[in-house]
Amino acid sequence: MAANFAYKNTRDFQFLLKEWLPMEEVMAYPQFKEYYSIDDVEPILNTFRKMCKEVIEPTCDDGEINPVKFENGQVILPPTVGPTLQKLQQDGWGASNVDKTPGAMVLPNVLHWMLWDMVTAANPQIPCYFGMCAGSTDLIQAFADDNVKKMFLPKMFDGTYTGTMCLTEPSAGSDVGDILSKAYPTDNPRIYNIKGQKIFITNGDNNYSENIVHLYLARVEGSIPGTKGISLFVVPKYWINEDGSTEFNDVFPTGVEEKMGQHGNATVALSFGDNNKCRGWIMGKSPLTNDGKGEGMAQMFMMMNQERLATALMASALTANALYNAADYARERVQGYHKPEGRVALSKHEDIKRGLLLLKSHLDAFRAMIFTTYIDFDIKYFSPDEKVRKEANDEIEVNIPLCKAYCSDECWNLMAEAIQIYGGYGYCEEYPIAKMARDCKPYSIWEGANYIQSMDLIGRKWGLEKGAVFAKWFKKIADFYEANKDAKGFAKEFAQLGKAVQAYPQIQGAILNWMKNKEGDMVPVYSKRVLMATAQIYGGKLLLEQAIIAAKKAEEIGADHYDYKFYMGKVYSAKYYLNNIVPNVAFVAEILKNADKSVLDIDFDSFDY
Amino acid sequence: MAANFAYKNTRDFQFLLKEWLPMEEVMAYPQFKEYYSIDDVEPILNTFRKMCKEVIEPTCDDGEINPVKFENGQVILPPTVGPTLQKLQQDGWGASNVDKTPGAMVLPNVLHWMLWDMVTAANPQIPCYFGMCAGSTDLIQAFADDNVKKMFLPKMFDGTYTGTMCLTEPSAGSDVGDILSKAYPTDNPRIYNIKGQKIFITNGDNNYSENIVHLYLARVEGSIPGTKGISLFVVPKYWINEDGSTEFNDVFPTGVEEKMGQHGNATVALSFGDNNKCRGWIMGKSPLTNDGKGEGMAQMFMMMNQERLATALMASALTANALYNAADYARERVQGYHKPEGRVALSKHEDIKRGLLLLKSHLDAFRAMIFTTYIDFDIKYFSPDEKVRKEANDEIEVNIPLCKAYCSDECWNLMAEAIQIYGGYGYCEEYPIAKMARDCKPYSIWEGANYIQSMDLIGRKWGLEKGAVFAKWFKKIADFYEANKDAKGFAKEFAQLGKAVQAYPQIQGAILNWMKNKEGDMVPVYSKRVLMATAQIYGGKLLLEQAIIAAKKAEEIGADHYDYKFYMGKVYSAKYYLNNIVPNVAFVAEILKNADKSVLDIDFDSFDY
Repeated sequence: MAANFAYKNTRDFQFLLKEWLPMEEVMAYPQFKEYYSIDDVEPILNTFRKMCKEVIEPTCDDGEINPVKFENGQVILPPTVGPTLQKLQQDGWGASNVDKTPGAMVLPNVLHWMLWDMVTAANPQIPCYFGMCAGSTDLIQAFADDNVKKMFLPKMFDGTYTGTMCLTEPSAGSDVGDILSKAYPTDNPRIYNIKGQKIFITNGDNNYSENIVHLYLARVEGSIPGTKGISLFVVPKYWINEDGSTEFNDVFPTGVEEKMGQHGNATVALSFGDNNKCRGWIMGKSPLTNDGKGEGMAQMFMMMNQERLATALMASALTANALYNAADYARERVQGYHKPEGRVALSKHEDIKRGLLLLKSHLDAFRAMIFTTYIDFDIKYFSPDEKVRKEANDEIEVNIPLCKAYCSDECWNLMAEAIQIYGGYGYCEEYPIAKMARDCKPYSIWEGANYIQSMDLIGRKWGLEKGAVFAKWFKKIADFYEANKDAKGFAKEFAQLGKAVQAYPQIQGAILNWMKNKEGDMVPVYSKRVLMATAQIYGGKLLLEQAIIAAKKAEEIGADHYDYKFYMGKVYSAKYYLNNIVPNVAFVAEILKNADKSVLDIDFDSFDY
Repeated sequence: MAANFAYKNTRDFQFLLKEWLPMEEVMAYPQFKEYYSIDDVEPILNTFRKMCKEVIEPTCDDGEINPVKFENGQVILPPTVGPTLQKLQQDGWGASNVDKTPGAMVLPNVLHWMLWDMVTAANPQIPCYFGMCAGSTDLIQAFADDNVKKMFLPKMFDGTYTGTMCLTEPSAGSDVGDILSKAYPTDNPRIYNIKGQKIFITNGDNNYSENIVHLYLARVEGSIPGTKGISLFVVPKYWINEDGSTEFNDVFPTGVEEKMGQHGNATVALSFGDNNKCRGWIMGKSPLTNDGKGEGMAQMFMMMNQERLATALMASALTANALYNAADYARERVQGYHKPEGRVALSKHEDIKRGLLLLKSHLDAFRAMIFTTYIDFDIKYFSPDEKVRKEANDEIEVNIPLCKAYCSDECWNLMAEAIQIYGGYGYCEEYPIAKMARDCKPYSIWEGANYIQSMDLIGRKWGLEKGAVFAKWFKKIADFYEANKDAKGFAKEFAQLGKAVQAYPQIQGAILNWMKNKEGDMVPVYSKRVLMATAQIYGGKLLLEQAIIAAKKAEEIGADHYDYKFYMGKVYSAKYYLNNIVPNVAFVAEILKNADKSVLDIDFDSFDY
């Protein structure tokens, strides 16, 4: 067991907030300006990093040594999880971004999630308990009745209660429209009797929280079929009576999944209403008074967007921690020869540096797109300007599937690179990468599998407002290219971005042609590659934005300045990404031209050989 | 725990042997023709597949439930391993290909290793005990003194003894020239005292074998520095006296590695000669009588080639078993909607079929290059024609790094695809893919990490006989393209192969230019991508060879024949691979033109951010 939180500083986060993103504007919003200024960013990040090393990292191996257990009908967490959650909440870090009450003291999302990036790197299990709580309070604030808000929110904000989202059922995963959970009316039109089974519920039960607030998707009898008939309910583990007393609400855990990683993270199967005594509060309109239409899926998407972005953040955090650990190892481990030095550390070998720069350039791209999207949430929630809020929301809509799928798919491949840097030790649990590789895989599956993300991009996001939203999103890249293509020192890199800008419309053209020519079944064959290319052109643009700033700063401060290597790292990261990764956009365009139909033509039985 | 050997038939192996490879010629060699004919292939394969399902598969979970332990100085194997090894040996399958005595009853390598492909899929731990034994007997047969052969070989052939290869030391992994193990002369010029530490020794010790025969790399005092001064010794755990009695040879296990997978596979640290009582037999000439030159590395490479190819085979076997399992799951699991059918099994979804065809086309490419190389070993060992033997050996030289690195790198990515087909269950140990994903990772590291393979390709194999060996290898692809480019039904696919044939010399040109222009440090930056492109063009050629045969057969037998779906599977596999994978060759050529130097230019400290 060798968990190691290897973040050495918060320099990159500071760069993103103070030198790249419009953080000063955000800090000046009414919601924030009385509490924080841009000068608070550095001490908050640095103090928190230290706390992660001292308090969170030591809990990480606990999940491996004492994995989540299901005993006597109880879900037992690793012993350190509860106290760690409690401490984080007590110190105000747990739900520090979620209270949407005007004037509430909250951190901007973009800063809050940088803190949670570090928590994740220090122990990837911890955010699986909190992230759900943050997302579920968002929904309750937005959609629950006032009495329900009063009942649950204060104790969710202070961490006494935790939350979940209950979508998946034994027979309904990606096709959530097929859930079998039912809700039956009671005398109170806002309260329903709940009955159903849910599986894969992160933090579905535990032996620590005073109460667990499930956001539960179910179908009210008489609602229309499919996702449009589904409603969302607040179903607590313990029902709260009007006098404040509580009673068990007939929610039973029935088992926990044994997974290849994330052993400290409770993935629970739950049974609701086995004894017909489970009740839930409906959120929004009931299908009974709304032509059979349920509002549940639309409501759930609000939380889903947050969870998808948090998933990208987790993949990014593990990538970062893998990079920093591998770099440390390469510095220390003497292995092989190099001219003219003779016997050297791994750090002198070109292939080792290649692996690390591959990790770093992807990490920089991940962070660029993730924190752009988080600051968009701050703008969307808190900007006084409606037009600006709309702009931010449009960018969020496009960015969510890109962040979620790209970061989580690539993370697995990057872990292989980090393992390879360690050689045989990369595969041994005595060193930290093996656990990270095991831990990172669910990110490509949960919160909407990555294929779903790719179809969300093509099927929904490309089409928003008849294509205007995506066209505006893409135009920002094309405009950036036009405005900066002669930027000093980046001729080759802008040439690559230019090729990608030319190629991308061909990708869209191929897809739209298939749709037009009734060859729509070709779209899902290539949608994941299209998503990847979309993320790569976006990543390339964002990294070049940063590199131009960094190159200027590096020139100003000179090579002897302590910050020089940081800035030049940003420059080389962009160069590597543009020359080695972004060319894939044109490559994907070429592949689509081939229009190979073998996936559609092959008989399924041919897979038996 | 859910190990599942999902091979349903041996149709593809039969195709490779009976319809594609020159197996009839090989079966006609003096070494084989008295014992086997081509008609034996099918019953041997089928009987063995049944045995794997009934006997090997049930042992697979044992490694997870009872992992290898190190207790009281002893390495304890999972209880089923010993008896399984014993049964396989007793039935004649263990070392069935290794006896090189003329006239010995052995299976052709290509057939033997198809059997071991199935063993691997049924329990990936088992071949880690036998593979080593097969490789080490090869070396002893080739290089040991006659008395040493007599002492060890019979009991290694019948499985009473097992074998290892001892290269890696705590301070020397990829740079084996830096080993610290020492060998000191004794009164007998063929016997040396041995002293040193070895780590990561597969099957380094166990509580089952009567004796363990270590092939041990060490440096005789006074030999020249680097790999050229190293010698190879036969160092048994129990020394065998002239009267046949044995005594402990001062070889102690000091621990076993805890790994992310392969829990039933003993990865052992060993200490030799702690009490100055460890002896070994030198193989070949001693440096003391050979100008300080040791023959150990050259000797070891003979075994290494076998181990590298066996590693590729293991990656291929896990890929196959992942494919067959995922296809079965997709057939059964109902999820989502599809027009016009309505609610359907996963098998109807295009993205699921895409994932499966990606797995299948890679599997077909893996098998094509692996079994081509195995039959080359049969030709090299047993062909009566010296020129033919040389041809086979030349192909082996080029193919080994391709098979080893390409199959083992891609295997990790393909496991992610298989996991994704299962959704959340792919990540759960209740289903079989999670364990496969954990098990497959060391293949990219052991027997020479994949970067070493890429430099072997470029630095050694491209240069053999001043480039003539590789030029001949490549010409076979170019000639195949010219001869078949108008083959009916494959116009698009040959167009892709043609592009790759044009692009590949540009890749070589870029690399050779860097070497010429003293930019040799650019080579290791791109060597892994070059290896991948080399494997892909080769895979493309081999799959098209097979597809042309298969298309013809399919046409002959018609769509109602039971074999039709098998043959059409080969056709679509080639189409997918050529249209979606082989274009990467031209893509890599483009990337090399960029000649991005950021990997060389970045300061190592920039990785701290």
